Amino acid sequence: MSAYATCVERFIQSDIRNPLYDKPDMISFSAGRPDAAVFPLSDISTAFHVLFSKGELVQALQYGTTEGLGPLREKLAAVVMKEAGVVTDTENIMITTGSQQGINFSAQLFVNPGDTVICETPTYLGALNTFSVAGAQCIGIPVESDGMNIEALQQTLEKHRDAKFIYTIPDFQNPTGSYMSLKKRKQIAELAAVYGVPVIEDAPYSEIRFTEEKLPPIKSFDTSGMVIYLSTFSKTLCPGLRIGWICADTSILQKYVLLKGTSDSQSSTIDQFLAYYYLTNSDWKARVASVRQVYLKRRNTMIEAIKKYLPDTISYVVPEGGFFVWLKLPILMDDKELLNKTTAFWNVSFVPGSGFFPEKNKNNYIRLSYSNTPVDAIPEGIKRLGQALQ
Amino acid sequence: MSAYATCVERFIQSDIRNPLYDKPDMISFSAGRPDAAVFPLSDISTAFHVLFSKGELVQALQYGTTEGLGPLREKLAAVVMKEAGVVTDTENIMITTGSQQGINFSAQLFVNPGDTVICETPTYLGALNTFSVAGAQCIGIPVESDGMNIEALQQTLEKHRDAKFIYTIPDFQNPTGSYMSLKKRKQIAELAAVYGVPVIEDAPYSEIRFTEEKLPPIKSFDTSGMVIYLSTFSKTLCPGLRIGWICADTSILQKYVLLKGTSDSQSSTIDQFLAYYYLTNSDWKARVASVRQVYLKRRNTMIEAIKKYLPDTISYVVPEGGFFVWLKLPILMDDKELLNKTTAFWNVSFVPGSGFFPEKNKNNYIRLSYSNTPVDAIPEGIKRLGQALQ
Repeated sequence: MSAYATCVERFIQSDIRNPLYDKPDMISFSAGRPDAAVFPLSDISTAFHVLFSKGELVQALQYGTTEGLGPLREKLAAVVMKEAGVVTDTENIMITTGSQQGINFSAQLFVNPGDTVICETPTYLGALNTFSVAGAQCIGIPVESDGMNIEALQQTLEKHRDAKFIYTIPDFQNPTGSYMSLKKRKQIAELAAVYGVPVIEDAPYSEIRFTEEKLPPIKSFDTSGMVIYLSTFSKTLCPGLRIGWICADTSILQKYVLLKGTSDSQSSTIDQFLAYYYLTNSDWKARVASVRQVYLKRRNTMIEAIKKYLPDTISYVVPEGGFFVWLKLPILMDDKELLNKTTAFWNVSFVPGSGFFPEKNKNNYIRLSYSNTPVDAIPEGIKRLGQALQ
Repeated sequence: MSAYATCVERFIQSDIRNPLYDKPDMISFSAGRPDAAVFPLSDISTAFHVLFSKGELVQALQYGTTEGLGPLREKLAAVVMKEAGVVTDTENIMITTGSQQGINFSAQLFVNPGDTVICETPTYLGALNTFSVAGAQCIGIPVESDGMNIEALQQTLEKHRDAKFIYTIPDFQNPTGSYMSLKKRKQIAELAAVYGVPVIEDAPYSEIRFTEEKLPPIKSFDTSGMVIYLSTFSKTLCPGLRIGWICADTSILQKYVLLKGTSDSQSSTIDQFLAYYYLTNSDWKARVASVRQVYLKRRNTMIEAIKKYLPDTISYVVPEGGFFVWLKLPILMDDKELLNKTTAFWNVSFVPGSGFFPEKNKNNYIRLSYSNTPVDAIPEGIKRLGQALQ
């Protein structure tokens, strides 16, 4: 067998889809899946019927353009991005197969093996794995309850003038739930301009917000064209359509389009048409508002259960949005060994925290997702976790 | 702005989607699109209704697995791959977003910048561009009417022992239409085993066959596990669903799955369900048989028109399948300049041949696609091309 490329040596089996989670009767706090009960089944069905009755199904089954369906990109600019707080145009948007593809394209476009990438620590492990496959050296900036430590970020930018980009999840960060302050958002946009370094702003959870205070994205303070904004319908609408998008200056976006052309030509045409007719005929803002209530209830249930069943020595921050509670355990322990035990003996699962750190040996954290666990099962699951931790 | 990765320097604007083609009243022989008139609209609509009425739409809108929907992979193994002549199992199949993604993943998994890749010359330009972005040095093996020149292939394998793979399109090759002989198929499978070099067998046109003689794929002679077979529904069913697949030995396939995980997590769940219910409730073999007739008629019309309207000094081989006629012009000319003229003055388009060669300065070829041109417009288009060539 010929040798694989060197990137293959950097492949990591992700803990997000561990077969341990698949045991029957498991109460799962692992994958950050949305709750299927909130999927807009009848709206998507209506979208399909509209497509069929208008005679457009034939176009929906044909090739489309690499950048994506024009009318969908227009709706994303005019409705979804506007709601998110970004003023932009159709020509600044490219459709991706979920925001994971946007993360991956960012790594491919900017990173040569050995290059430095700046991210939060901890951060989304799917991004870390992707950066690792690209051969990036990830430098983690500690993430506080109000976002990245800006002093540490600036020092790192000073020291690593050749850093390829800053990857950040300002809204209800995965895994910490951190919500970046307005001040830090402005500071990051400014640092991007000063140091000439792109910011990859990953915003999958932005609309899953439990607080009244809505903070504008970093992209809204982007005067230098350095901020590349990634989002997706996976958490708000449904992930099965695999519709994500990139919003960036046209000169940068053009590179993403060329890369997408050689990568997979285009995302599913029919999925793009369904998303377009969903946005045309359904009330996006009302949907987002109702989805928030579902996840707020789960978060509240989980936090109550944590207070009741987990020892006081475990610390966490109550998330003001998103899907996750991030627990700091009082002592260093092998988090994967803990997972083996809780799944084997207690029928409760989580994602070990160590995979979310660019550094090694951070073993005293676990990530709990409340997004897809029936609300009635959450207290029982946390109770089991408490017993396992004793 | 920070520097892009070096791969960006290797990006090529593909001639497949040239804006010149978009002029109104253009008779287009350019993109290799299937004819939308043969798309199974009512069958896909039925598949959606089945999905909805069975209560499975909710699963179709949720995340699935990276390797793809189990029942679809099972159907592909049991029905589609069997029809293609490959005995395989569900576990040997991974779903991709079109076969372009399979080509791209192959480049990413095997090629470090500077590595050698062996392909046909000419060959599919989307593959050449992808290999180029990966930094491959492509060595082209002349393709004859019965496939690659095996002597040249063996000499190249001797000389380039570290070649990463052989990329071939045995069936109705893009762009030449060449149909590889049985003998050469067996020889390539043997060379793969002897030299320990993987073969990427790209088979998008295999079922678009006009001849009675059906030749088994190289994969069917694969005793060493070295043949990686790529296919797609884009040409036989419809491209808008973006369902392609990779069939390979499990040890190799596992690498593709890990790469897909970091690339885009998975392909569209709903598209996979629609394809599954299409295969379950519709007659795949009957469909393929009827689609062949449509393209056979167009090929016949185009060949007749070529005989009537083009000078005898232009040579070509009558393709026994696929979408393309490959014309060799009698003299070297700037094929892109020719395209500029035919689109500007004669309202007829094609794809310049030079992009299909790994070598430079091959300017005396053009590719005509008959797949998506109304049959009545084909003679007029060829007539215009003849006038332009005078």
